[in-house]
Amino acid sequence: MIKINQHYQKLQASYLFSNIAKRVAAFQQANPDKALIKLGIGDVTRALPEACVSAFHAAVDEMASDATFHGYGPEQGYDFLREAIARNDFQARGADIQADEVFVSDGAKCDSGNFQEIFSTDIKVAITDPVYPVYVDTNVMAGRSGDWNSETGRYDGLVYLDGNRENGFIPALPEEPVDLIYLCFPNNPTGSTATRAQLKEWVDYARANKALILFDAAYEAFVQDETLPHSIYEVEGAKEVAIEFRSFSKTAGFTGTRCAFTVVPKECMAYTEGGEAVSVHSLWNRRHTTKFNSVSYPVQRAAEAVYSEAGQKQVKELVAYYLNNARYIREKMEALGYECIGGENSPYIWIDGKGDSWAFFDKLLNQAAVVCTPGAGFGKCGEGYIRISAFNSFENVKTAMDRISQHL
Amino acid sequence: MIKINQHYQKLQASYLFSNIAKRVAAFQQANPDKALIKLGIGDVTRALPEACVSAFHAAVDEMASDATFHGYGPEQGYDFLREAIARNDFQARGADIQADEVFVSDGAKCDSGNFQEIFSTDIKVAITDPVYPVYVDTNVMAGRSGDWNSETGRYDGLVYLDGNRENGFIPALPEEPVDLIYLCFPNNPTGSTATRAQLKEWVDYARANKALILFDAAYEAFVQDETLPHSIYEVEGAKEVAIEFRSFSKTAGFTGTRCAFTVVPKECMAYTEGGEAVSVHSLWNRRHTTKFNSVSYPVQRAAEAVYSEAGQKQVKELVAYYLNNARYIREKMEALGYECIGGENSPYIWIDGKGDSWAFFDKLLNQAAVVCTPGAGFGKCGEGYIRISAFNSFENVKTAMDRISQHL
Repeated sequence: MIKINQHYQKLQASYLFSNIAKRVAAFQQANPDKALIKLGIGDVTRALPEACVSAFHAAVDEMASDATFHGYGPEQGYDFLREAIARNDFQARGADIQADEVFVSDGAKCDSGNFQEIFSTDIKVAITDPVYPVYVDTNVMAGRSGDWNSETGRYDGLVYLDGNRENGFIPALPEEPVDLIYLCFPNNPTGSTATRAQLKEWVDYARANKALILFDAAYEAFVQDETLPHSIYEVEGAKEVAIEFRSFSKTAGFTGTRCAFTVVPKECMAYTEGGEAVSVHSLWNRRHTTKFNSVSYPVQRAAEAVYSEAGQKQVKELVAYYLNNARYIREKMEALGYECIGGENSPYIWIDGKGDSWAFFDKLLNQAAVVCTPGAGFGKCGEGYIRISAFNSFENVKTAMDRISQHL
Repeated sequence: MIKINQHYQKLQASYLFSNIAKRVAAFQQANPDKALIKLGIGDVTRALPEACVSAFHAAVDEMASDATFHGYGPEQGYDFLREAIARNDFQARGADIQADEVFVSDGAKCDSGNFQEIFSTDIKVAITDPVYPVYVDTNVMAGRSGDWNSETGRYDGLVYLDGNRENGFIPALPEEPVDLIYLCFPNNPTGSTATRAQLKEWVDYARANKALILFDAAYEAFVQDETLPHSIYEVEGAKEVAIEFRSFSKTAGFTGTRCAFTVVPKECMAYTEGGEAVSVHSLWNRRHTTKFNSVSYPVQRAAEAVYSEAGQKQVKELVAYYLNNARYIREKMEALGYECIGGENSPYIWIDGKGDSWAFFDKLLNQAAVVCTPGAGFGKCGEGYIRISAFNSFENVKTAMDRISQHL
């Protein structure tokens, strides 16, 4: 008899986005003539940078002729892209990452979801709260949690690190020993950022406890404050204990084009039951080459163009455009008396709604025809907050904020 | 302490392709002026069909403008592609598959590697021998095998179904009960094909034993014999017990472009420990949406173009071109007195080398400067055989066969 992975039955249905969709549909039916503005889901809205479009077309043309056609590429990605990444994103910032430590992939969601596979199911996992649900769900699926506990509103067996107003949504180190730690800065959903000193605490903790950090830096391009790190590898010792996930999705508008990468330094070790060190790079290489077949060649060429002179300029403009939206949203919300986090080095503004998340969501929807995301959907500590995303045209953002200012 | 997934340590290093690469490099160093012809790896060599190239370019242009830009798409793939697949690949052949049973992905390797995740680790897995190594390795990684047994040359705990000259490399049903069965027809590496009646036996077995079949049909486009099925769903009852993997890689030259799909019928069930039926479609949907973020929009548009009138014509020409190579290879090898399987409804020719696989490989390399794949690399039952791939230009195939004819 073909038996299911019973851990899947522990998963709570994600009501967040279906619930949002339901309320939005009801609103639209009741108000067919009101134009909704969506600042909920974190999806980019502006065209690919021109440099990427040109490179994309040129590579499609290569595929159109036998002489320049590309079949299977290296599973880890083409050297041209891995080298551009290592040079521009790391070496240029003083982080000694080599091209062969970069694994190109089709998404940071996929990599951050799959990476746990190479570790034992018998380890303690720590996640921050609020959190990107993929970190949690993939560990539940793998059997690293107990059941969902409706009293605590959390899965048993996972270690939740609370983010809150007091710590500025930068959780403190765990009080019990943990083995695998998911961190994300600039944070999704809160937009909070971590300083070098704060990351150093985590790195030191991991080194002292033989733990490993999975660091999601999908939003690093939004960091404007020059004192803030873009990569965890800007912190001394991180190469021994941290994996970093990056993506072109938010940096260069690639959410629908699909290209990302994961950095796995060769120094990084995990351990056998008997305490023998094993290279995480070799484990991930085995996983990646066995279960993945690399990213579309034209897409890799489009991603490479991000690092051209024109590409860098265009990407900076793209990020600046969204950050201008973010600043505008934050200013308006603060003017209305709401406390905000994020929006300065992040495309997300995390807003204390002074009450129930869903009630605030409903108010914005029904009174201003603006869609946001209720913070409670990201975990217990998100209750009372909403997330507003800056990914939209400035015109829409302005209209949305005018409406909110008028009705709130 | 961060502990590794200990099952990874059972994995045998795949010496096959690195060993081939080593021998090829040594030959080239010793014979710098001899032009090697590679008929080893199953990678296409001809340009993308024109219809796909045009659609690809048009979709890149859409990404170049805010008004027509595409961000995140549906994780299961766009309806335009899922509907074209369901209609053309299944409904047109009398197989009642609906668009929402099709999950678009970036590769049949990924899907056939990932699919096992949704099942218990406590099930019995059957694979054919010789076999595509991904089926085996991903189950070893998940802990469904015992250790590698150097005496048997196989992993303990897996059920190997022997292919051999007697059964024409169509293995018989297992003698012990199994729960998950990997089948691939037209077969990689042997090129053997299964009739409807043969597939019916497997479907009946699975229905009688509550087993599930993972059917890899990546090479279905090469089926020319009108009596042979292209899909397992052409067999009655298969929708209850079979998942099918398909790919545009070999059909339309997409090995470097990356697009594939998996069909998960809604009737398909797996069971809890207590015997309660659970929809495999809902399990896979949960896995797919949690760990995957769909395929590049322009790539999905390029794949859709395969089903246009021009696309269908061009794809047929592409397949016919490679099949002409295959026929030529088979004829020449048979004329030299070698027994062959495949090459008629498959791009692979499986050749009985009348001795050691690697010795035959070396002979072709050193005497004819032709690279093939030693059958032993695909499992114990591949010993004595080699695989020649038809993926190359006809000119190269002709030269290769001239050289082989001259030297063997």
